[in-house]
Formats: sequence, C-alpha cells, structure tokens
Amino acid sequence: MTSSATQPLASTDDVYPSRQYDEPRLLERQDPVIHGKPGYLPELQRRIYETKGFLAYPSFFTAEEIEAIRREADSQRVHCERDRPEVITEPGSNDVRSIFDVHRRSPTIDRLSRHPKIQNVVTEILGGGAYIHQSRINFKPGFRGKEFYWHSDFETWHVEDGMPRMRAVSCSISLTPNTELNGPLMLIPGSHKRFVSCVGSTPKNHFESSLKKQEYGVPDDVSLTRLAEEGGIEAPTGPAGSVVFFECNTMHGSASNITPMPRMNVFFVYNSVENKLREPFSGQTPRPGHIANRTDYNPLQPVEKV
Amino acid sequence: MTSSATQPLASTDDVYPSRQYDEPRLLERQDPVIHGKPGYLPELQRRIYETKGFLAYPSFFTAEEIEAIRREADSQRVHCERDRPEVITEPGSNDVRSIFDVHRRSPTIDRLSRHPKIQNVVTEILGGGAYIHQSRINFKPGFRGKEFYWHSDFETWHVEDGMPRMRAVSCSISLTPNTELNGPLMLIPGSHKRFVSCVGSTPKNHFESSLKKQEYGVPDDVSLTRLAEEGGIEAPTGPAGSVVFFECNTMHGSASNITPMPRMNVFFVYNSVENKLREPFSGQTPRPGHIANRTDYNPLQPVEKV
Repeated sequence: MTSSATQPLASTDDVYPSRQYDEPRLLERQDPVIHGKPGYLPELQRRIYETKGFLAYPSFFTAEEIEAIRREADSQRVHCERDRPEVITEPGSNDVRSIFDVHRRSPTIDRLSRHPKIQNVVTEILGGGAYIHQSRINFKPGFRGKEFYWHSDFETWHVEDGMPRMRAVSCSISLTPNTELNGPLMLIPGSHKRFVSCVGSTPKNHFESSLKKQEYGVPDDVSLTRLAEEGGIEAPTGPAGSVVFFECNTMHGSASNITPMPRMNVFFVYNSVENKLREPFSGQTPRPGHIANRTDYNPLQPVEKV
Repeated sequence: MTSSATQPLASTDDVYPSRQYDEPRLLERQDPVIHGKPGYLPELQRRIYETKGFLAYPSFFTAEEIEAIRREADSQRVHCERDRPEVITEPGSNDVRSIFDVHRRSPTIDRLSRHPKIQNVVTEILGGGAYIHQSRINFKPGFRGKEFYWHSDFETWHVEDGMPRMRAVSCSISLTPNTELNGPLMLIPGSHKRFVSCVGSTPKNHFESSLKKQEYGVPDDVSLTRLAEEGGIEAPTGPAGSVVFFECNTMHGSASNITPMPRMNVFFVYNSVENKLREPFSGQTPRPGHIANRTDYNPLQPVEKV
C-alpha cells in the first residue's frame, strides 16, 4: 500500500472515490435508489427495493420459459471456446465459470434481456431508457463451486469502467434451484445506501484475475460488520425461474458450493442511458468491451412477442 | 495414481479398505449403528440416529453453561502458542483454526467431555465404556472461514490411525449460533450405512497438510451424488449450546464462511474401549497422539457434579 502523499488526488467530480486512500471510508449514497416515477411496480415492491436494495421474485418465469433458457445456457457452455476472452474458467480447472457478452452471442439470450416483464421493472427503477452494460451466464458447479467474496458491483464499475453514478440495476435469473446450502447469492439489505470506499489502488489489467478471484476493491471487515449488523444478510431461495433485481451498489457475495447441486444463472446489468461510461476513475485503461460495454448506448427495445 | 498391480494387497481383516484401488467403491457397512441396549435415549431418537447417522439438539446446554465454555475456548485461542503441533492455523493466515487435545490442556474442557448428559448418549450409542480418540476446539472465523470438503471421519481414522471398526461417535458442541449462511456443518443423512472407499494412496505425514486442506481420502463425485440423492443434505442450525452427535462414518463437510459471524465449537470423538486402535491400515507411521490418542484407553468417568 502506498502512502496518501504519493496517491493521485481524487477527481473533483468523483463523488464515489475508492482505492485512493489508506483507510477505508463509509460514504453516503449521493443518488436516488429508484429513478423513475411509480407506474408498473406495486407500491410495496418500490418500498422494498428502496429500503433493501433488491427485489426477489421466487417464480418470475414459468418452468417452460426457464427450461428453454437453461437448454440454451447449457449449449453455450458446451460449445464455447475456452480460450475466448469472454469465457472465464474456474481457478485450478477447465470448468467454465462464466461466459460474458452472452446477449450478443445468443439471440435467445438477447430476447430474454428485452423481455417485457424485465424491461418494465428496469425502466421504472432507472427512470427511462437503459442499455446493457454487461451480460453473462454464471455456472457455479457442484462440489467445487468457489466462493465470491463480498463486493459492490458499482465500486468496480465506477473505478475500473468509469460508471459515474449509481443508476444501474442487475437482474439475476436462476436456471437452477437456489437453496441455502448450494452457495446462493447473499445480499446485505440496506447496504446500497452507503458506499464503502476501499483501500489500495488498482493494478493494471486487474480484470484478468479479478474475475476469478477478487483482490482489489475488497470491502474492509469493519464496514462489512457495520452494514451486516444494520441490515442482516439475506439469501433469496427459490426454484429455477426465480429472479433477483439488485441495485448496483448492494453489497453481495456467495460462499463456496460443495453440494452436488450446481447453480446456473443469467445475469444482465442494465445501466441508464443518462449514466454513460467515462474514463475509468482509476485513471487506467478501460476494461474490454465484453466486460464493460462502452460502444452501444442505444436504449433497449422490449420484445413484443415472448 | 499408481496402477492396481503396484499397490499393496488389502489386509485380509481390513473390512473397510480405502486408498487401495484405482476406482472408488461404495461398500456396505459391516457394523451396528447403535451398539448399546435401549435405556437413556427415547425410542424416537434411537430411530433417528440409526436412520440418519446423527442426532441434533437445538438447545442441549443452557446459555450460562455454554458461556463458561466459550470464555474458556476464547482463552485457549488467545493464549495458545501458534508453533505448538496441537495448534492449526488457517491456510494463508496466522488465525487459529483448531486446537487439538484440548481436554488435556483445559480442566474445564475435560469436565465438559465427561458431562453426564453427553456420557449417557455416548454410552448407549457405543454400548459400554468409551475413551477420547480426539478432542479439539474449531474456530471458523468470519469473512475468511475456509470450506471443509465432504469426508467420513472414519475413513481417515481407519486408514491413518488404525481404528478397526465403526464404533465411535463425534459430539460437536456449538459455542456460537449456527445459521444456514455462516458455513454450518452439513451432513448427508443415511450416508453412515455405506463406506466410500476412496482412490489413491496416503502420502507420508499427510496429517500435516490434511488438517488444513484435504487432498487424500476424498470421496468421489459419483458416490457423493448417490448418497445425497438418497438422503439429501441437512445443516442443523441453532443457538450457542446446540449439540450434534454424529456417527463416525456419516459424510459431512462445510462451505466457506464469508459472513461476519464466526463459528466456534468444541469437538469430542468418543471411541469404544472395544475398538482400540491398531497399526494404520495404510501401513504407514501412526499420526501423533494429539490427533489420534493411542496411549490412554481408560474408559471415561462421568463427572458427578456439573
């Protein structure tokens, strides 16, 4: 770790500085949580998202809808070329952990990303047009599924991709059942209202290792303890077809999965067209386009017939 | 892995051969599950232990009783010398993961191991006198608690310690709350009725690394899948003071713990005095006495006043 004196001064319009100081800081959120007016979401759901930073639907898609997606995801996994940059393998094995940019690789996944049921939620939360910042399929194998430590996605997107403000939402669509025991997504309710400014700096080409194992932009124990004491920890469970929308700054992670039950999900990140990327706040080279789209900011058009 | 031709022949009286063949095998249990006559345990609890291979009590000890033990465990952790062989640290840190032989280090823990409520259960399950094969305190820290992969304790005790038959029971006493999310003990009900004969051989001084990370005596995916399909997976939860008795061959493990909630438990292994250790079935040097007691086979005397 370098001393404060040798570190670059925070950009004056960087409202969420991170990896710039020697000590972690817990900053207040500077943006609304829901950017759109009431319309589609019931008032209770708006209140839940506003308060907790996520909305979990146990049965968002039917078994038939999800079966078609699962087949497509399996096909992508089987047929993907392991040496493509979009394909991330597990540390210590050749098993596919994630496939990025999957809405461009698969017309089926593209249509899923523009499903009206999803688009209606996204439009209300982001208040208008949205584009896809990142898409992927995650495969968490049985027996040897690795943990993913606590993190705010926004922290990474801000520092490494130059996403200026908190006006993005992630949508995770489960293609397998989530139980408490097979390494489910865990979230800290209310954590989206704070920004954990992490210590240290970002090394060059951090993304190449961070997608396998996070080492920078890691929240500190004191901040995590405080957030979890205030909000607890929740792990939404449900059958295949369950969906979680979570705010870009909601602290989340998952433990290892040693059960025989694999986990698979499709993951879309929607960012507001008013929140286009700038230069990374780390001052370094932007991550590649399959991880952080910075070429296509056209608002998504919902599919008409699903 | 060596070929069958170069491996030692299984001892003719080794009814549970493991790490001797190139292919995993799922063998039938050759021993009773409960060795004693009915007396102390209610009939339902005997049936549960017989069927599932474990008995979980959500509130075995009172908050006051357990608070005294927790203080003693904390004191042991703080004051133990990290370079003692009984003290095992986490991979990659100096945090204490386990302290072995703790009933000899602490009169308080010694008395706990001979608590009448525990002794009554142990005596009925093992059918007569029992001694302590192994004792320890386990500390699973918050944030960075590592996973412990699936294993049958008996497989290790048989191969590496020379425990001849399945006539031992483990008692795990929680000193902190167990939730589904903080890396709880997971068990496969019914798995104690089979013996998963693992592939490969045992390297010399395996215990030095295996207490940190298991690499030999690891059950195969097919056997684990079959056991979990038949019996499911359970993770008993409860407050501090909850206790699980589990049969020496019950398949168990735990995922990593990234929550801020640490886990701490005291762990006693009771073996029947009729089941004394022999030479290890691996043919190698026995593990040291603080891991596998082979000098004191005197039956335990329950404390009179608790």
